[in-house]
Amino acid sequence: MKALEWHALFGRAAERIQASTIRELLKLTQRPGVISFAGGLPAPELFPKEEAAEKAAKILREKGEVALQYGPTEGYLPLRALVAEWLGVKVEEVLITTGSQQALDLLGKVFLEEGAPVLLEAPSYLGAIQAFRAYGPRFLTVPAGEEGPDLEALEEALKEGPRFLYLIPSFQNPSGGLMPLWARERLLQMAMERGLVVVEDDAYRELYFGEGRLPSLFELAREAGYPGVIYLSSFSKILAPGLRVAFAVAHPEALLKLTQAKQGVDLHTPVLNQILVHELLKEGFPERLERVRQVYREKAKAMLEALEKEMPKGVRYTRPKGGMFVWMELPKGLSAEALLGKALEENVAFVPGGPFFATGGGENTLRLSYATMDGKRIQEGVRRLGKALRSLLAPERV
Amino acid sequence: MKALEWHALFGRAAERIQASTIRELLKLTQRPGVISFAGGLPAPELFPKEEAAEKAAKILREKGEVALQYGPTEGYLPLRALVAEWLGVKVEEVLITTGSQQALDLLGKVFLEEGAPVLLEAPSYLGAIQAFRAYGPRFLTVPAGEEGPDLEALEEALKEGPRFLYLIPSFQNPSGGLMPLWARERLLQMAMERGLVVVEDDAYRELYFGEGRLPSLFELAREAGYPGVIYLSSFSKILAPGLRVAFAVAHPEALLKLTQAKQGVDLHTPVLNQILVHELLKEGFPERLERVRQVYREKAKAMLEALEKEMPKGVRYTRPKGGMFVWMELPKGLSAEALLGKALEENVAFVPGGPFFATGGGENTLRLSYATMDGKRIQEGVRRLGKALRSLLAPERV
Repeated sequence: MKALEWHALFGRAAERIQASTIRELLKLTQRPGVISFAGGLPAPELFPKEEAAEKAAKILREKGEVALQYGPTEGYLPLRALVAEWLGVKVEEVLITTGSQQALDLLGKVFLEEGAPVLLEAPSYLGAIQAFRAYGPRFLTVPAGEEGPDLEALEEALKEGPRFLYLIPSFQNPSGGLMPLWARERLLQMAMERGLVVVEDDAYRELYFGEGRLPSLFELAREAGYPGVIYLSSFSKILAPGLRVAFAVAHPEALLKLTQAKQGVDLHTPVLNQILVHELLKEGFPERLERVRQVYREKAKAMLEALEKEMPKGVRYTRPKGGMFVWMELPKGLSAEALLGKALEENVAFVPGGPFFATGGGENTLRLSYATMDGKRIQEGVRRLGKALRSLLAPERV
Repeated sequence: MKALEWHALFGRAAERIQASTIRELLKLTQRPGVISFAGGLPAPELFPKEEAAEKAAKILREKGEVALQYGPTEGYLPLRALVAEWLGVKVEEVLITTGSQQALDLLGKVFLEEGAPVLLEAPSYLGAIQAFRAYGPRFLTVPAGEEGPDLEALEEALKEGPRFLYLIPSFQNPSGGLMPLWARERLLQMAMERGLVVVEDDAYRELYFGEGRLPSLFELAREAGYPGVIYLSSFSKILAPGLRVAFAVAHPEALLKLTQAKQGVDLHTPVLNQILVHELLKEGFPERLERVRQVYREKAKAMLEALEKEMPKGVRYTRPKGGMFVWMELPKGLSAEALLGKALEENVAFVPGGPFFATGGGENTLRLSYATMDGKRIQEGVRRLGKALRSLLAPERV
């Protein structure tokens, strides 16, 4: 009998498919006693447990034969209609996906292939890098900061002819950056002139701390009559990620191809989950969003106050205007991975920034999430982080 | 401003990704008054609506912070443990997938690529053909009938070096075929000699009408110490498809790569759905399965009695020993698509067999599902089908 060498049996893509280093890291940070700023998880106190319990029971009793049966690939029609109404688009332009992660995979499947260029911010969302990488593209990256991508670098990179641009203009993961209106307009102009496809990932759209939100690239494009922006968003950050319900909005021709691709990857998103999201959103949604914003605003404030007090000189960090993350730059030459070792000794954790850079770099950066903790834990965690940092900056004095 | 020609913007894979003709067809058959044997849907009267309502409410109230939060890619540990116990494998060998359709996509992602040969039965499950096709493989097919694949043709096809064999040994979709024990043993022997990977899709495993079920290829392989069988099964046919919970079992090395691939495609299967399936299976599961078998046994009997009475000579059909389907062969030269036209005039529908043949053929075949109807509707539907068939066989006499 032959033994099996699995690696020799896999296809070429298998080499590109790797575990997310961050996911592996998260396991370390779940040690008891560790205060973790590492995860990207939403605040569980915001989950509508009781309301979901009541509604799920009602749905299963009253329309269990729909909720438990196979459903259409496009999604549960009333939920698609609700999304269409929000965004002022046609129902035919809305596809429900099994989390936004699935939309990223579908985009890879439809637009990418080995060697195809695709443009991302550096840093960018790790899940997107992971989803696209399986298709073997050539990553083009442009630096991104508190005001989004560097538009001059972006213009230069466009010469390489990317299949699409993947951008998170509002409260970017991991940088927390927010593209101002002028930058959105300029970027859109560049895309329109070249007939470029822009994928706008807008999962954090509603988590603004100020008085309102900026128009999305998608909205600006529609106003200008440009069909080339594909819009992704999710109920994970505003309702509950465990349900895995998100949506993609695109020109009908693009949406049809994404839908056909989805048919082959999971037939459809679970029906119960879609009906439940629809029922939870039908009433009282503006009030829920206000509460979500309030909670994250307070957590962000607590973290920024603590950072102000604890961070030594030479450490730069963003002041987020929304979302779930603070992005930090250590002095050049200092490694965030080395800091993580020290931090874990102090029982505090974060995510090193390196993996968020699709083409390398960012070794001195890191991401801090304030989403899952209360103010006291945040203070204590930042105090520990400050201690770890000082020990690394001046090891001889420790 | 440039207009967009989406087709020119898509990658090479987009051409291979097409809507399932059958899914399009199903829309036609949903006209009121049509008795449809077309769908592959399980019987909705078997869905545990009340029990699911109670349990879902309890889960969301008592552990909503788990059910609604992000979860591990591998799946909800207690559900993995339950599957591992059933199959006598280690927890580390079980991956929960978002329906079996996802497992098929993951297999394509990990094992296939453009031009890579993969071996299927003809006919085979349409969803598998669709999932694999997106990766651009070269399909090898071997004829399959009531006793599964033709093993001589299979041995011949193995010379082409397929990356894996995809087989549905029990109550195949669409053919209803059942590989006898001797054929399973011989096939496994062939795989072991060559170190071949076999993917066994066993979604219909529990739906046997006789006294028990045959050992799976996976079980036989484990007994023989052979690690090369990857086993897929699902809760769709025995519990409820709308929850999209299924599982893959494989050697840890293969499972790890499939898990890494899953991380990039949807992070994880919805947590609520996994806990719900676990709660529903924990108690009274043998009794539930007995009821499921009973219901399908009766429906199959009703359909076979009606076919006996109504089918003209020259029409051959299978007598299923389990599962949800009867497979029919019309006399050579008669087209199932032409029959469908006539059948729809009589308000009865089925699925033509052609699309189930990955490399073409099968134009005179069709699939009848008896799963969603009661005996009376089945009788009436078969009567209408007989009428349509006779009008096609002897049009001059109508």
